[in-house]
Amino acid sequence: MGKIRASIIGITGYTGIDLLRLLLLHADVEIAYLTSRQHPREKIGNVYPHLAHLPLEITDTAPAEVAKGSDVVFLALPHKTAQEVAAELHGRVKIIDLSADFRLDDASTYAAYYEEHKYPNLLKEFVYGLPETVGRDKIAKAQSVANPGCFALVSQLLLYPFKGKIAQADIFAVTGSSGAGKTPVDGTHHPVRNHNMKSYNINKHRHIPEIIRAGGIDAAKLNFVPTSGPFTRGIFAQAFITLSGEAGDASAAYKDCPFVRIQKNVELAGIVGSNFADLSFETGTGGRVLAQGAIDNLVKGAGGSAVQNMNLMFGLAETAGLFNLAPLYP
Amino acid sequence: MGKIRASIIGITGYTGIDLLRLLLLHADVEIAYLTSRQHPREKIGNVYPHLAHLPLEITDTAPAEVAKGSDVVFLALPHKTAQEVAAELHGRVKIIDLSADFRLDDASTYAAYYEEHKYPNLLKEFVYGLPETVGRDKIAKAQSVANPGCFALVSQLLLYPFKGKIAQADIFAVTGSSGAGKTPVDGTHHPVRNHNMKSYNINKHRHIPEIIRAGGIDAAKLNFVPTSGPFTRGIFAQAFITLSGEAGDASAAYKDCPFVRIQKNVELAGIVGSNFADLSFETGTGGRVLAQGAIDNLVKGAGGSAVQNMNLMFGLAETAGLFNLAPLYP
Amino acid sequence: MGKIRASIIGITGYTGIDLLRLLLLHADVEIAYLTSRQHPREKIGNVYPHLAHLPLEITDTAPAEVAKGSDVVFLALPHKTAQEVAAELHGRVKIIDLSADFRLDDASTYAAYYEEHKYPNLLKEFVYGLPETVGRDKIAKAQSVANPGCFALVSQLLLYPFKGKIAQADIFAVTGSSGAGKTPVDGTHHPVRNHNMKSYNINKHRHIPEIIRAGGIDAAKLNFVPTSGPFTRGIFAQAFITLSGEAGDASAAYKDCPFVRIQKNVELAGIVGSNFADLSFETGTGGRVLAQGAIDNLVKGAGGSAVQNMNLMFGLAETAGLFNLAPLYP
Amino acid sequence: MGKIRASIIGITGYTGIDLLRLLLLHADVEIAYLTSRQHPREKIGNVYPHLAHLPLEITDTAPAEVAKGSDVVFLALPHKTAQEVAAELHGRVKIIDLSADFRLDDASTYAAYYEEHKYPNLLKEFVYGLPETVGRDKIAKAQSVANPGCFALVSQLLLYPFKGKIAQADIFAVTGSSGAGKTPVDGTHHPVRNHNMKSYNINKHRHIPEIIRAGGIDAAKLNFVPTSGPFTRGIFAQAFITLSGEAGDASAAYKDCPFVRIQKNVELAGIVGSNFADLSFETGTGGRVLAQGAIDNLVKGAGGSAVQNMNLMFGLAETAGLFNLAPLYP
Repeated sequence: MGKIRASIIGITGYTGIDLLRLLLLHADVEIAYLTSRQHPREKIGNVYPHLAHLPLEITDTAPAEVAKGSDVVFLALPHKTAQEVAAELHGRVKIIDLSADFRLDDASTYAAYYEEHKYPNLLKEFVYGLPETVGRDKIAKAQSVANPGCFALVSQLLLYPFKGKIAQADIFAVTGSSGAGKTPVDGTHHPVRNHNMKSYNINKHRHIPEIIRAGGIDAAKLNFVPTSGPFTRGIFAQAFITLSGEAGDASAAYKDCPFVRIQKNVELAGIVGSNFADLSFETGTGGRVLAQGAIDNLVKGAGGSAVQNMNLMFGLAETAGLFNLAPLYP
Repeated sequence: MGKIRASIIGITGYTGIDLLRLLLLHADVEIAYLTSRQHPREKIGNVYPHLAHLPLEITDTAPAEVAKGSDVVFLALPHKTAQEVAAELHGRVKIIDLSADFRLDDASTYAAYYEEHKYPNLLKEFVYGLPETVGRDKIAKAQSVANPGCFALVSQLLLYPFKGKIAQADIFAVTGSSGAGKTPVDGTHHPVRNHNMKSYNINKHRHIPEIIRAGGIDAAKLNFVPTSGPFTRGIFAQAFITLSGEAGDASAAYKDCPFVRIQKNVELAGIVGSNFADLSFETGTGGRVLAQGAIDNLVKGAGGSAVQNMNLMFGLAETAGLFNLAPLYP
Repeated sequence: MGKIRASIIGITGYTGIDLLRLLLLHADVEIAYLTSRQHPREKIGNVYPHLAHLPLEITDTAPAEVAKGSDVVFLALPHKTAQEVAAELHGRVKIIDLSADFRLDDASTYAAYYEEHKYPNLLKEFVYGLPETVGRDKIAKAQSVANPGCFALVSQLLLYPFKGKIAQADIFAVTGSSGAGKTPVDGTHHPVRNHNMKSYNINKHRHIPEIIRAGGIDAAKLNFVPTSGPFTRGIFAQAFITLSGEAGDASAAYKDCPFVRIQKNVELAGIVGSNFADLSFETGTGGRVLAQGAIDNLVKGAGGSAVQNMNLMFGLAETAGLFNLAPLYP
Repeated sequence: MGKIRASIIGITGYTGIDLLRLLLLHADVEIAYLTSRQHPREKIGNVYPHLAHLPLEITDTAPAEVAKGSDVVFLALPHKTAQEVAAELHGRVKIIDLSADFRLDDASTYAAYYEEHKYPNLLKEFVYGLPETVGRDKIAKAQSVANPGCFALVSQLLLYPFKGKIAQADIFAVTGSSGAGKTPVDGTHHPVRNHNMKSYNINKHRHIPEIIRAGGIDAAKLNFVPTSGPFTRGIFAQAFITLSGEAGDASAAYKDCPFVRIQKNVELAGIVGSNFADLSFETGTGGRVLAQGAIDNLVKGAGGSAVQNMNLMFGLAETAGLFNLAPLYP
């Protein structure tokens, strides 16, 4: 088999650029197109000087043409924009959508958290791409995959071992500033962010319906406190989980998952730059399970999971191109 | 009345040095002695160049002599060392002890978390110095005060409004590196700490019995997850509190507390360098109260509370020398 | 004498807000007006929650009315806006302008680096407010003072001891992100700034004519490399100075300057939050003097110098309200 | 050809661990031994949890045995220890020494900056491994290579284009905390380092003789100001270079160097985690060249150069395993 011709539509955001970093390291992949509407034909180093060594160009090639020259197309677009492109390309080429547009299977929930979905019928066409909790077979057979949200992904990994017996889950999750994207806003202004912690959208965050859908609990049993932290990459999440049944051995749920590492002590610095999700589960007082998780929001929480999904969709080892990429430590 | 002659025994730790910063700004205070066993007679600027402008000296003056020349003596010593000095000085001069040695009233609990207490009879002689939850009168009349621990203080402020009706409290608290003191250790090594979050001593931290004693709950109802964060100053704490009764208006508990500010959004950057404790209380799902708090561990969590206690003990306004010190923002 | 009634026009920028922090600590000052065009009558805590404890209001009071009720008016406005207000108020009330509008005495230089000055005749009415290098008497007698720029101030302190014998000065200066103000821009976007160093406006920065004017050298002998650093507060500057004459004892130039501290090792963390300028001078190879300086850009580089100037203008001790404010360390 | 069997003696330091990260990504390499005297047979994840997914073990295998089973041995040992192992293995296996022990060709200089060299005759046996300035042929033929020091490497890259015509070089270089290694010391204590800049060993740093030797200047013409900065990885260096001749086109010196990128604006965040050295050269006043450079001290300044040297020594493309590793941005 030749190399997989992979393209990224919407290359200039942090999600796109970090996905490219991963694809460059993947021996079975070659880059076909990197597109952006803002950049009709430009050397990538002009836009991102840290990539000045690459002979790659950013173009504004139309999606249909991208699809023709690609085996897989990654959509690294804002939600709403993504669904337009997805609607055009679905069925013509394998799609991995990193936006929020196809993570929910219910149009009314999507409408409640985002806005009216323009292609509600397409929602069920996308397989939710979290290999650790969704059957790998399902992803392997998918034509189009919806890549999970970063907060949602780590939260689900904390809840999944207890699926069906969660009476209540209280989650406090701290994210790095790269999660906010590349456009400067008040919340990413360095003078304050540099030594700040601050919660936002408590019990209102858009990843909540995704946690609920996949986590097997309902909104009435979840407190979700997203919090911004003073670091660039990663999410560190603490869950206090009240069970209605026996805890069992939580780590067993992940015994065949190469990117989940059950650690004695989870630490953010242990996963930066890599696709690993480090988890720990302890028994606390009051029948709580104390669960912690750390992921890199741009890798396991975005491009890394996307590559993992691509591997499954193309019959490669799930670990291809990812497992040898150790965290950048220190 | 002349100025209060204040001395700090154990000036060279972060607690001592930051207490000095506060005392220098207090119009009713003059510095009598700054002592350290390691520094027999040295200009303070030699030890701490950031204080090179001060004409003050560090000496190794014996505690008894310090007491003679002081109206109040602050003990900024490690626990165990502090109790020796406290035993010598108690009754001779007003004492505010910033160590852990007199925060518990029960010698066996102290023994369980630290080691055998050498002066168990003295435990009941010290008033616990948290003005917001202990009667100010009690502190005003005290000869010796035990200043609260930083984690314990912010945790108590989150629990206090619900005293007597807490079924369970799950607290996740993130601390800055200055909380670890001035001696470099693995956990404060910059290359990793710089972008890390990592919990430690979960449900075993030494501040737990202090939270329990004063917070009005028992250990079986508390999960306490202390976590190190990538910033220098401050503690940001999230509590999920399950109530056995009605929540009521939590903010009412602090209506006469000048240093407690009920905020819509608590943020760490809003309190650095100051004596303010910013708190928020929200209603969550599952009957939880979501409570957040932020303090500067070296100010409200140490020297600031100590000065606040001193003010009460000397009949000054509780706010003297502290209220006009705004947070360093940004 | 009653307290000095001080007002800040343009309170909502970082310069204004940090100046307020200093004025609150000044025993001889009371706040008259805090104004902002964007905020007609608002509690300051609504705009800046870290000041929620203050009973102060922000108003949009007209400058003329502010002047009537004030003994001194601080202009914490952008350049260009500042000159309008200054033109209106000059002669009616003591003015300390923290903008760039009156730092240069030459309208054509101002035009070259900024734009046409609308009140060129006013340029000579303002005394340049750097007490360490300008005669204190001159400042004491001034009606209107132009407060130095932060980069310019620290650069001048490094050059001043060698005035008249500088053959060449090569300055590399690293600034914290607060220097960029409170509006988020690409250069202050946390994900990148957090671990970045990057120079900008090399040999073109607007503080260059100010360095030249006051530093006693000409542009052909200066390389000035402003650089952004990954911290919030402070400037750390390294100068390699080639002399045409003997160096002499550089520290002698500052023997009567309470806020200049000659240190063996200059460090940024030693001055944060305070009005101190820490300097060192060493002899290098090639006839170079290696000079280093550190200031807090928002204090000695802005509001602190402004208060120092105010002290001189009102016959107070130069150190009033400032000397007891120790750096926030650590 | 089979894979290169590569071993690291002294795996537990930051240099060793980051070299391992790079070797894991290299398609032509397999890990033979990872040794440490402190760890007789231990899973690497026990020592470094961020590598918990690897099936690799750390052993205390003797160097001679390591050599037998390896094609190349990397020494990631402290200087002094390294020379013992190098003396034992030289001639038996290809060696790339990342310590300082063989970077100088003159035993007396080594003695002046370190201590007496125990194997002075061996100094000339090692080729200095900086491909961009030393002939690649020389490295390709070498049996043993001395890998450059991080400060020395970036400094040489700034000076090299002007070799033979440098009248004076004044270098200010800021390093991340990982450069200090993994043992906590005062200078890497997070509470202060977190927002500090501080120079040390000015004109005395041990990398100076290495700069001089390779840079083609003498100590009397160099000022070197090493400075610690508040970030984990990278060195940002500013050089003011006074020329005795014409500058010429500095970038031409690197036209065949795949890891040197001439940038308009050098920035630290643009190279983190990668083997790239970003450089810029501008003409300043006073006949100075303003040169800037940024490298990752643990990659181009250590393990990355080591792999680059290995590639040359084994006849691989210089870029193998390194070029596709993009910087971790943001």
